[in-house]
Amino acid sequence: MLVDEYRNVEESKVDMCGADGVSIRWLIGKNTKDAPFYMRHFTVEVGGNTPLHTHNFEHEVYILEGEGEMNTGEKTFPLKPGSFLFVKKNEKHQFRNLSKDIPLKFLCMIPVN
Amino acid sequence: MLVDEYRNVEESKVDMCGADGVSIRWLIGKNTKDAPFYMRHFTVEVGGNTPLHTHNFEHEVYILEGEGEMNTGEKTFPLKPGSFLFVKKNEKHQFRNLSKDIPLKFLCMIPVN
Repeated sequence: MLVDEYRNVEESKVDMCGADGVSIRWLIGKNTKDAPFYMRHFTVEVGGNTPLHTHNFEHEVYILEGEGEMNTGEKTFPLKPGSFLFVKKNEKHQFRNLSKDIPLKFLCMIPVN
Repeated sequence: MLVDEYRNVEESKVDMCGADGVSIRWLIGKNTKDAPFYMRHFTVEVGGNTPLHTHNFEHEVYILEGEGEMNTGEKTFPLKPGSFLFVKKNEKHQFRNLSKDIPLKFLCMIPVN
């Protein structure tokens, strides 16, 4: 049994082309033995966004705090606390913080690869 | 791409021996094609608890709202928004709402079985 707080987990900047003001905490990752999938906590600062990108694995996402949108390159969807998303393999996606004063925070779960 | 709000998802009572005041919403489940794991949203009413039980699959949990505790039968761990848990296969576990006035809400992800 692992019980912890997200604030205790080391935060690191997402240093990826097209990411602006994004940080990540690996709540359940490679260090958690026998984890069947991974749980990450993201913070996108005011004015920030994740890259518009694709990859060959899925995302399961739940919005915790803030106000933003999902941009697929063709459409946008508003996001707020309580929104959830399933991003299929190879679907284009980008998270944008649209708030003027608070970070956008969300959980993003991914398969173990 | 699926984008929705948890409030839009049908809520049903958990009708399991030892569950008291517990309801579930399957945010990402069997109806979501190609989901690599499932995302459920639980609400435990004031005074309520999930059963003290075990099963042969893991839980990955994130506390969204409220105040409670994880009971393993031997130990308890306090829970609040921002707490996360990894419950291994066959580990005994029970969620209890300890607040006097608000529901305990959490996400619980499980493998596809």
